[in-house]
Amino acid sequence: MSETEPSVKKSRRGGGRDGRRTARAAGGAVAAPYINLAIAPVDILSDEGAEIIENNAEIILEEIGIDFRDDPEALDILRNVGCDIRGERVRFPRGLARQLCSTAPSSYIQHARNPARSVEIGGNKMVFAPVYGPPFVRDLNNERRYATMADFQNLVKLTYMLPGLHHSGGTVCEPVDLPVTKRHLEMVYAHQRYSDKPYMGSVTAPSRAHDTIELSKILFGADFVAENTVISSLINANSPMTWDDTMLGALKVYARHKQAVVISPFILAGAMSPVSVAGTLAQTLAEAMSGIAFAQAVNPGAPVIFGSFASSMSMQTGAPTFGTPEPAKVLYGCAKLARRLNVPFRSGGSLTGSKTADAQAAYESAHTLMPTVMAGTNFVLHAAGWMEGGLVADFAKLVLDADQLTMVPNLVNGIDLSENGQALDALRETGPGQHFLGSSHTQANFQNAFWRSSMADNNTFEQWSSEGEVASAERARKRAADLLAAYEAPAIDPAIDDALRAYIAKRMEELPDTDY
Amino acid sequence: MSETEPSVKKSRRGGGRDGRRTARAAGGAVAAPYINLAIAPVDILSDEGAEIIENNAEIILEEIGIDFRDDPEALDILRNVGCDIRGERVRFPRGLARQLCSTAPSSYIQHARNPARSVEIGGNKMVFAPVYGPPFVRDLNNERRYATMADFQNLVKLTYMLPGLHHSGGTVCEPVDLPVTKRHLEMVYAHQRYSDKPYMGSVTAPSRAHDTIELSKILFGADFVAENTVISSLINANSPMTWDDTMLGALKVYARHKQAVVISPFILAGAMSPVSVAGTLAQTLAEAMSGIAFAQAVNPGAPVIFGSFASSMSMQTGAPTFGTPEPAKVLYGCAKLARRLNVPFRSGGSLTGSKTADAQAAYESAHTLMPTVMAGTNFVLHAAGWMEGGLVADFAKLVLDADQLTMVPNLVNGIDLSENGQALDALRETGPGQHFLGSSHTQANFQNAFWRSSMADNNTFEQWSSEGEVASAERARKRAADLLAAYEAPAIDPAIDDALRAYIAKRMEELPDTDY
Repeated sequence: MSETEPSVKKSRRGGGRDGRRTARAAGGAVAAPYINLAIAPVDILSDEGAEIIENNAEIILEEIGIDFRDDPEALDILRNVGCDIRGERVRFPRGLARQLCSTAPSSYIQHARNPARSVEIGGNKMVFAPVYGPPFVRDLNNERRYATMADFQNLVKLTYMLPGLHHSGGTVCEPVDLPVTKRHLEMVYAHQRYSDKPYMGSVTAPSRAHDTIELSKILFGADFVAENTVISSLINANSPMTWDDTMLGALKVYARHKQAVVISPFILAGAMSPVSVAGTLAQTLAEAMSGIAFAQAVNPGAPVIFGSFASSMSMQTGAPTFGTPEPAKVLYGCAKLARRLNVPFRSGGSLTGSKTADAQAAYESAHTLMPTVMAGTNFVLHAAGWMEGGLVADFAKLVLDADQLTMVPNLVNGIDLSENGQALDALRETGPGQHFLGSSHTQANFQNAFWRSSMADNNTFEQWSSEGEVASAERARKRAADLLAAYEAPAIDPAIDDALRAYIAKRMEELPDTDY
Repeated sequence: MSETEPSVKKSRRGGGRDGRRTARAAGGAVAAPYINLAIAPVDILSDEGAEIIENNAEIILEEIGIDFRDDPEALDILRNVGCDIRGERVRFPRGLARQLCSTAPSSYIQHARNPARSVEIGGNKMVFAPVYGPPFVRDLNNERRYATMADFQNLVKLTYMLPGLHHSGGTVCEPVDLPVTKRHLEMVYAHQRYSDKPYMGSVTAPSRAHDTIELSKILFGADFVAENTVISSLINANSPMTWDDTMLGALKVYARHKQAVVISPFILAGAMSPVSVAGTLAQTLAEAMSGIAFAQAVNPGAPVIFGSFASSMSMQTGAPTFGTPEPAKVLYGCAKLARRLNVPFRSGGSLTGSKTADAQAAYESAHTLMPTVMAGTNFVLHAAGWMEGGLVADFAKLVLDADQLTMVPNLVNGIDLSENGQALDALRETGPGQHFLGSSHTQANFQNAFWRSSMADNNTFEQWSSEGEVASAERARKRAADLLAAYEAPAIDPAIDDALRAYIAKRMEELPDTDY
């Protein structure tokens, strides 16, 4: 199996602002910036079923209500658009939440500093981003330990170099060696400096969302950021049916600046939602609609994504489980509900509860990724590197998952029925009992005919054995080390880089060294 | 994670013939005998696309033709139904093959000696069978070596005990310690004696197909076999567009006895078919139709399965590759073509080119299995245990794959929209910020709400680590050893067992000890 990396294709625009954001792909291949699906999404929830779920979501919103906690301004905003507020419990009269959601765009462009990397999120587009949130890493020595800022930078660099990933993500790991008050500055900078793919912003405090926006203004120009979306950030619900002030605060900052928010009920079904698919669907829809409606109440037209993170709980041990059929059904159902709401959809990834990149990890990841892809999910967080139920960012698994992602375009591009695709001439030329290797059709098409893994070993047993019987995870660690050794940062205007560092230095001075 | 096996459910019928074939499940759990799909098959080939492919298949059948080699009787049969024969090249006038196929049943019952294990093949039913054909095993000690009859028996025993597998399969490995002339007798007997699931027959010579039928008459009764299908056997095309006399000879024996044949073009795309999906589809359809038409010409109404085994070749190294998108597209397309031909469909499995049960093996297997399932494949050979491109039957992977198979019923049973499934009462009872663990709905439903792997480790890192950091494949070898230690053969009427052994002894006397 050849391990050739795709050749670097440079895409350059002219000078000025565009010049500063121009494609500088040294060290990272510019693959297609996102995937276009040519096949219809798999639909396992009937239209009648969707109507039942939508009706139940309205019942939740109108009768049970959603808590918006510790944020009086949020309650005022919701009261002003017609919600019924009692204490922190917000009830949406039937139809109000859906009506508010209608101002959300069905699709948006998230700009990257390299325009060739800008992504469209929504419609029939699909964008892959790496794992988000783990406090631990499993590193290049296969050691599991707390994550550091150096790990964060390395994960950003690998994501930049891996063509399966379109988006740099956000908290690719939690760099616990920096104070909570300050780490967001280095995290955002790492995405800005070590990659030229689009990125996510800090959501752990409104002030950190502000810092993200200020840093983005320096990178893209304030005028550009005023008019365009350059950040997508993750706003998790505190399920069931609760939003807290941290998430609401960050949401307001981003929505007011026309930056995108991924409104994501985060549900361990059985604990944080009913122990059923249809119940989880109704709750997810109600929570997502309440968050999207709030974002639209804050700033009509602000880009949003309907998110769903659903795992099922082992009802025997309480452990979260991944790659199981019930979350897959929730995913298919939510994708349809999001289409009916006419907003982009986020879910899935390459999820697993396994502790190493073994067969369990790969089965569970693939059994999450396939529903994700076949449902037509628009934005896929955790598409690579997720381990141990999200506790660990695994360098080997990042490489293995990202390799799998590169097959997706070939899976969803439909069947080529052109004359060349039909290949009748090859059939006529070859005939019974002959092989097609030498046919002119094969010669003309073999380079791009079939997807090829860069990580699979398809050699004979004898060759594999003579090379030391190296299993998949070990090959991936080697590949990750090789990639990092070959890494070259995308070029950046030194004046911009200086301005970013100056802003960070100033804020570092201002902020306390605390862990909250 | 609990490792409880499902409890044994005994299903018994009355005495006589039924009594002899009665359910005796000691040692093996009787799960549902096959899967019912409640969701529509995924359809990525449009109706217009299918018409193009069907037209091209007719062009292949009419203009290029199919070789039927070294079997003058086959040529006579085909001449008599209207084919154009020149030498061994058979051309089907446009529409003839499809017309001949129309007498094939759209679905059939393959009876097991335990009626509770009988399977329906066709329609919206799905049946999983283990790996077929490997000359090697990777054994309980993780040693790779030539397979023996003892391995064959152990693989049959494991398949009997694994609830994910509905069918005992055929050549679960090639027992090279017995002469080729005789091994089929012990192989068929192993399926008959050590399992009570349905099985496949020998196809390596017409006389061995006859032996399979004679042994089946002893097990089921000659009258029963005269009226019912108790054997499904694999008839591979010698692609491109060629049938050989061995396969044709076995096909004729089975079809004349109303036993089922799985007509399977076996295609390494790029070498044995054009290097394109649409070209491979047309060729597969033409080959399958020619074989099915021949079976119907031999005995109209004989049960058949439209088979497709498609892998893509690495055009760089010549190695077969698995779990890649192009074969998945061939699978989706062929499934639709089989539905339009109104015959059962066989394809897919848990295929991989990996040498061990590592992440590569699991990714590739899952990326074969998901299209297999979502396409609504009726009969799935190689659903568990396949390794190294089919060269190896891996005991650990058999257990791991079979565990994954048990999730499929939960994936394809649709979304429960009953009142209990909607769980509105649970949502009302629980409300914002609370958990659902104690709700009456959860208490009433938690036992069966979510599928649970019996092989995944979802414990904490600390627990997993304290237990020795055992990866997935090693856990599976342990499980396989435990299962074999606990194995109890299903009961059999001693008179029948004696008759089977007597037949085998007589044939062993008659047959030479040669390797052809």
